[in-house]
Amino acid sequence: MSVRVDRLPSGLTVATHEMPHLESAALGVWVGAGSRSELPNEHGLAHLLEHMAFKGTTTRSAVAIAEEIEAVGGEVNAATSVETTSYYARVLKDDVPLGLDILADILQNSVFDATELEREQHVITQEIGAAHDAPDDRVYDLFIEQAFPDQPLGRAILGTEETVRSASKDSLRGYLDRHYRGPGMVISAAGAVDHDELVRLASEKFERLATSSGPAPVPGRYRGGEGRELRELQEAQILIGFPGRSYHSDDYHTAQVLAATLGGGMSSRLFQEVREKRGLCYSIYAFHWAFSDTGLFGVHAATGEEDIAELMPVILGELERAASDITEAEIARSRAQMRAGLLMTLESPAGRAGQLARQIMLFGRPIGFDELVEKVDSVTAESVRRLAGKLISEGRPTLAGIGPVKSLIDSDRVASRFGAPVLA
Amino acid sequence: MSVRVDRLPSGLTVATHEMPHLESAALGVWVGAGSRSELPNEHGLAHLLEHMAFKGTTTRSAVAIAEEIEAVGGEVNAATSVETTSYYARVLKDDVPLGLDILADILQNSVFDATELEREQHVITQEIGAAHDAPDDRVYDLFIEQAFPDQPLGRAILGTEETVRSASKDSLRGYLDRHYRGPGMVISAAGAVDHDELVRLASEKFERLATSSGPAPVPGRYRGGEGRELRELQEAQILIGFPGRSYHSDDYHTAQVLAATLGGGMSSRLFQEVREKRGLCYSIYAFHWAFSDTGLFGVHAATGEEDIAELMPVILGELERAASDITEAEIARSRAQMRAGLLMTLESPAGRAGQLARQIMLFGRPIGFDELVEKVDSVTAESVRRLAGKLISEGRPTLAGIGPVKSLIDSDRVASRFGAPVLA
Repeated sequence: MSVRVDRLPSGLTVATHEMPHLESAALGVWVGAGSRSELPNEHGLAHLLEHMAFKGTTTRSAVAIAEEIEAVGGEVNAATSVETTSYYARVLKDDVPLGLDILADILQNSVFDATELEREQHVITQEIGAAHDAPDDRVYDLFIEQAFPDQPLGRAILGTEETVRSASKDSLRGYLDRHYRGPGMVISAAGAVDHDELVRLASEKFERLATSSGPAPVPGRYRGGEGRELRELQEAQILIGFPGRSYHSDDYHTAQVLAATLGGGMSSRLFQEVREKRGLCYSIYAFHWAFSDTGLFGVHAATGEEDIAELMPVILGELERAASDITEAEIARSRAQMRAGLLMTLESPAGRAGQLARQIMLFGRPIGFDELVEKVDSVTAESVRRLAGKLISEGRPTLAGIGPVKSLIDSDRVASRFGAPVLA
Repeated sequence: MSVRVDRLPSGLTVATHEMPHLESAALGVWVGAGSRSELPNEHGLAHLLEHMAFKGTTTRSAVAIAEEIEAVGGEVNAATSVETTSYYARVLKDDVPLGLDILADILQNSVFDATELEREQHVITQEIGAAHDAPDDRVYDLFIEQAFPDQPLGRAILGTEETVRSASKDSLRGYLDRHYRGPGMVISAAGAVDHDELVRLASEKFERLATSSGPAPVPGRYRGGEGRELRELQEAQILIGFPGRSYHSDDYHTAQVLAATLGGGMSSRLFQEVREKRGLCYSIYAFHWAFSDTGLFGVHAATGEEDIAELMPVILGELERAASDITEAEIARSRAQMRAGLLMTLESPAGRAGQLARQIMLFGRPIGFDELVEKVDSVTAESVRRLAGKLISEGRPTLAGIGPVKSLIDSDRVASRFGAPVLA
């Protein structure tokens, strides 16, 4: 596998996966800080900063950034998540240097013009409004807020209209100086790229990065709880959650396999029991979100008001059953799906660049396909059952519901069923 | 380019793009019939049939279908659109025969069991409810309904709860027999596939397809009109539309370039004027949907109630300006974006398999990259301006809005501004 990694004097890592048969490349800069790296009074700042990166530098106006990359058929975009912020470009082979030049410029030379800032605050207000209007978005905000209350980790990434409007050039600059530093950043590229050339360009264009690390975020503390928002909707959007595992936990891969077996594909238990046997939901799945120090395990379902009473006991029953009778055959299927998913990621420039960057941010090195498969393959049905039993009983459950959710079971009743504490 | 095409005696076409460097493949069966092929009393039937294909065959139960493909790490899925229905699998190299076997089975041997049908009707009711609850989904249903009223082409693909519940095994069988026929179907695969092997397997597994063509859909007739749904939302979801061009029109590529220039990427006119200069929207873009005999050109925007009054004149102004002053430099940028997009599609197994299938269904042959680029490159600023002027004035505009849209301009006022007819 043609993966190469170099670390520059600033601490910035450059990682590439050359795919010589391709004509295009995906490249990006990943910053190991996101919404949870905000201070309590900075809610929404990580995301606002990501937006403001496209609003002009000392040498390029906002329109020049857009025109320059699109004139060669490329595109740049960015995303803010809980623990990372990424800026990426999708370009043809010859335009990798231009892509990197623009990314370097917007990350180091943004001017945060006051008029641009005010306009962008208004744009984000619209983004917040649309997320609020989308029940299947909004329910996730309620959910993480209940799981990790009073912590940046549990706040909606977009912030609120009020907090976004209170940001200033100084607060943007403060967050940037604190977190956009060499040791916490990775340039990752896959596809038609030349590693040595990219390292040379990166050394040149990112020479001014601070060389010491930024502060680590406050440790996440799972608490659990419940939030519901009555709305006149045809479907109730429901999330039920439990403590999960961090990326560094010995149980991380077990938790991933559990989520896949319980509610990953069409052959998973929840899909079969809830949708195929009972027709109760169109959307039903389980997921496991890992963070660097904690995790969150959950199940999502959407159903009509009249079906909630039948649905919830079935979901709770499946969670319980997972702890007692998940079989080796089911686990083998989940492992096969994860293995195939890993292989397909290796073949996608954008997927691969992101995967490499995350591995380096979390583990300091790329994790090879064989090593990952070995970890997934070492997960047994017994370890999955054991973990399922632990997760549902070790903390107060989290419940979030939007729509006709008046009759939705409450968090304490779920807790008492699973023998879990009612207060964290 | 290693593209190969064979037509079997039944009329079924098999097309492949071998990518020898890959370990995975995407393959699918595309049927040249979708929601617009439904009879007036069959609303939602194309989509229901697509769901029922996964609910059991003469030799496989629903759970067996899911378990068999997922046991090898593959996945199968399907999608229904206005003019096509596709069933596809994503698998590792050695599992292409299994993927094709399952697709052949669910398309030819589904049993449409009565209990399964009843349950799936309930599942789709939930799907309809969720789409109704999502304002940015729902507004598109309103939109196409106004553009093509009283025609299957203008109906929501999902159908309504009532029409879906009225479907029967006989009506499913009727639609299937009418449209799932050799001449209207394409097997397309890209990635780690062997063309000759796939042709051999397809001959064997699809030998019972009817060999004559199914009926063509009723010609689409653009009418225009307006639909608004007042809801208490933070954002108004707005679509404004005009007649577009069919895939076979000489103006098809011009319409695509117009949409990209007016509201494609970040450098497009609408993005720059509406979002970057005025901060009025988070989401703003233009699109052109082509069908086999007609088309629809549109602009989407989402904004708060207080911004509608400023937003709409700006959008209408940009539509008008497009007809008078789009420049060669802008067109060159759109062409570059489309060219790069085509190249990247060539590198993605799933994207490429779908593209090949659509080309064969529409034009009877794969269209090479050079031929496509030549067509895109022949589009001039003059032709884009001329087409923009025609589109906005040749038919009654279509307006759709959901949310706080009481003050939204009406369709007739847009018509009179552009000198368009107020009644189709």
